[in-house]
Amino acid sequence: MRELFNEEKIGTGEILNCREAAYLNQALAADRKKPRPLKSSGSAERKMRSMNKKYVHGYDLRENIRLQDQASTLIELLHADTSYTAGSKVLEAGCGVGAQTITLARNSPHAHITSIDISESSVSEAKKKIEEAGFINVRFQQGDIFNLAFEPESFDHIFVCFVLEHLARPVEALDCLKNLLKVGGTITAIEGDHGSTYFYPDNDAAYRAIQCQVELQKRAGGNANIGRELYPLLNQVGFSSIHVSPRMVYVDSSKPWLVEGFTKNTFTAMIEGVRESSIEAGLIDEKTFDDGIKGLYRAAETDGVFCYTFFKAIATKQ
Amino acid sequence: MRELFNEEKIGTGEILNCREAAYLNQALAADRKKPRPLKSSGSAERKMRSMNKKYVHGYDLRENIRLQDQASTLIELLHADTSYTAGSKVLEAGCGVGAQTITLARNSPHAHITSIDISESSVSEAKKKIEEAGFINVRFQQGDIFNLAFEPESFDHIFVCFVLEHLARPVEALDCLKNLLKVGGTITAIEGDHGSTYFYPDNDAAYRAIQCQVELQKRAGGNANIGRELYPLLNQVGFSSIHVSPRMVYVDSSKPWLVEGFTKNTFTAMIEGVRESSIEAGLIDEKTFDDGIKGLYRAAETDGVFCYTFFKAIATKQ
Repeated sequence: MRELFNEEKIGTGEILNCREAAYLNQALAADRKKPRPLKSSGSAERKMRSMNKKYVHGYDLRENIRLQDQASTLIELLHADTSYTAGSKVLEAGCGVGAQTITLARNSPHAHITSIDISESSVSEAKKKIEEAGFINVRFQQGDIFNLAFEPESFDHIFVCFVLEHLARPVEALDCLKNLLKVGGTITAIEGDHGSTYFYPDNDAAYRAIQCQVELQKRAGGNANIGRELYPLLNQVGFSSIHVSPRMVYVDSSKPWLVEGFTKNTFTAMIEGVRESSIEAGLIDEKTFDDGIKGLYRAAETDGVFCYTFFKAIATKQ
Repeated sequence: MRELFNEEKIGTGEILNCREAAYLNQALAADRKKPRPLKSSGSAERKMRSMNKKYVHGYDLRENIRLQDQASTLIELLHADTSYTAGSKVLEAGCGVGAQTITLARNSPHAHITSIDISESSVSEAKKKIEEAGFINVRFQQGDIFNLAFEPESFDHIFVCFVLEHLARPVEALDCLKNLLKVGGTITAIEGDHGSTYFYPDNDAAYRAIQCQVELQKRAGGNANIGRELYPLLNQVGFSSIHVSPRMVYVDSSKPWLVEGFTKNTFTAMIEGVRESSIEAGLIDEKTFDDGIKGLYRAAETDGVFCYTFFKAIATKQ
């Protein structure tokens, strides 16, 4: 898949409906048909996850695959308009396993990117991925967003994607990041919002199953509906010229690559992933959860429609 | 306001954030400060509406004003990419009081537009508006979508906006319209979707108040969440090359003209309009409804965010 990313030309556009996205996702769908050795570890993994009680996405194998798929499907929609000039110093805060890092590195080949994550193993994996792809413009470092070992005003730009949703104190995190940013520098923040989900046919059980993910994330200190809050959050921290643009993923059966790549393999897969945790936590009964998942797959049928919105914010430190 | 519409240049763009929209809505906000004689009839009107039990929007005075405001705020977002070639015959099915007709007439100055509505008084008002604006490319006719007095295949294009949501049999309506369309002709359908509404801060009472509007519309035979269904509906009727594009209205306090023009004066005003009917129908208690309205106004404050999505579909008869 990696080679595909490198060959793929990236256009612009806020709604994911362009030809490039079609090619990208058709190729991904074909790729998905190949056997996936990691998937066979699903049951052991599920058991492990169940034992762990708390489920934080980004930190297990199946999640890795899902995050890779999600990143590939959404590259065009979320990242096409992010490119940093030659020589600029960019901090990617919370790179995880590098799902977005590879796009950052490709779109800004002459920027100096520093990617950090709190998880040492994620950083190792991200580093391996970037090295295998042949990019030399990224350096990696383990570190905690709230306590990074950089001088104040070290960076021209900061990029933070699918991170704030996991933090109990997003305002403080943004404040720490702002401290690392030069005056006149920008922060780019991207987040999803599970409350933006709706579909046809409508299905109450499906909303209840989604709500389990929202509730579990809340109990883990996060906020699955943080997308809509980017403007007030950045405003509260004192950023200027805040511009938020919604990036809506609209899926009907005229876009089979999105039905597969987004409705089923990204969103529904994510909700399916919290089945055991949700039932164990007493948030929902098995039948309702399973009916909800069926409801989401129903929205992926020929007459179904699925909608989800990501939010991308760009703001300046003055 | 009419003159403003005529002078205003219309650009393109699926997200309502361009400079033209700003000017348009700032002007509208200024206009809104002028005394509105019709508004003084509010209490009598409310009584009348309450007596009528069923509340169908588009058919009373306050609603007229709201629909005009809504149309002005959303012209750019919804209609900028609708323009018909010189000489083409266009049917606007369900023109109401002409809120969209004036934009159609302006964007397609050399097309021959026929605008129909089931309400004789709405047709009269629409006709007056178009004549006063000096457009000569529209003729009006009272008629029922299900039984229009036109020969089959009379039109090159059909335009239907905020109409299907009110119909108990939208598939049959689309089928009737398809019959009037020439082979190779297009239909353009635009609808909102109340289920696409979310905001910050979140507020359960507000969702409950919105749900009253959805339920009342359902009881009147309509569907306030029909936007997401445009693809399956058009598909079911046998249209080809169906393309649906969501048109999301994202409002934060960096866009004060949308806070006023959309969050408060369009959406919240619409929900406020069903207060009595909802309480009388036993759908909600007074306190919850009023708390819900407060919640919507709360989302219009400096740190608030409001999101709503319209859907625009274009399809071809083959």
